[in-house]
Amino acid sequence: MGRISEAEIATALDDRADWQRNGDAIVRTVDCGDFVGAVEFVNRIVPVAEAANHHPDLAISWKNVTVKLSTHSEGGLTEKDFALAREIDSLAAID
Amino acid sequence: MGRISEAEIATALDDRADWQRNGDAIVRTVDCGDFVGAVEFVNRIVPVAEAANHHPDLAISWKNVTVKLSTHSEGGLTEKDFALAREIDSLAAID
Repeated sequence: MGRISEAEIATALDDRADWQRNGDAIVRTVDCGDFVGAVEFVNRIVPVAEAANHHPDLAISWKNVTVKLSTHSEGGLTEKDFALAREIDSLAAID
Repeated sequence: MGRISEAEIATALDDRADWQRNGDAIVRTVDCGDFVGAVEFVNRIVPVAEAANHHPDLAISWKNVTVKLSTHSEGGLTEKDFALAREIDSLAAID
């Protein structure tokens, strides 16, 4: 699965309103209420990341979790990133 | 509990060999073996952070967790940071 084109990225981002482009990655910050909520959100990401064998960078700062997705092996964004972004949006919607 | 002096920071860092100064903070990166191990380490930090009412910034990148401690309310490093660093070192030693 290779990198997707800029046009494909733009189309995919149209469907992911909470995500922003950041160089070779896409990022979303989720407000989880407090520190415990932030870590619980990270825990919910584990099974979907493991199942996809695709692991986002995760930054916890008090109540906020910033998720950063990129496909390092391809040097940029692939369909795997947007598939995982969609799953993470579903997890975030539970809050 | 206010900011500690540069001399006190230097002395405290002498006891925390795995931590580096980073501006107004101290940081340590812990290799947890894999992504699941990294998230497990973050979970172990939760009760000690909650008990201290002091919450590090935590960055997970695959197998690595980077812990960043600072006392934002004081605008710099306090004894709370080094107390929590000591507890986190104990948790990291379990790996």
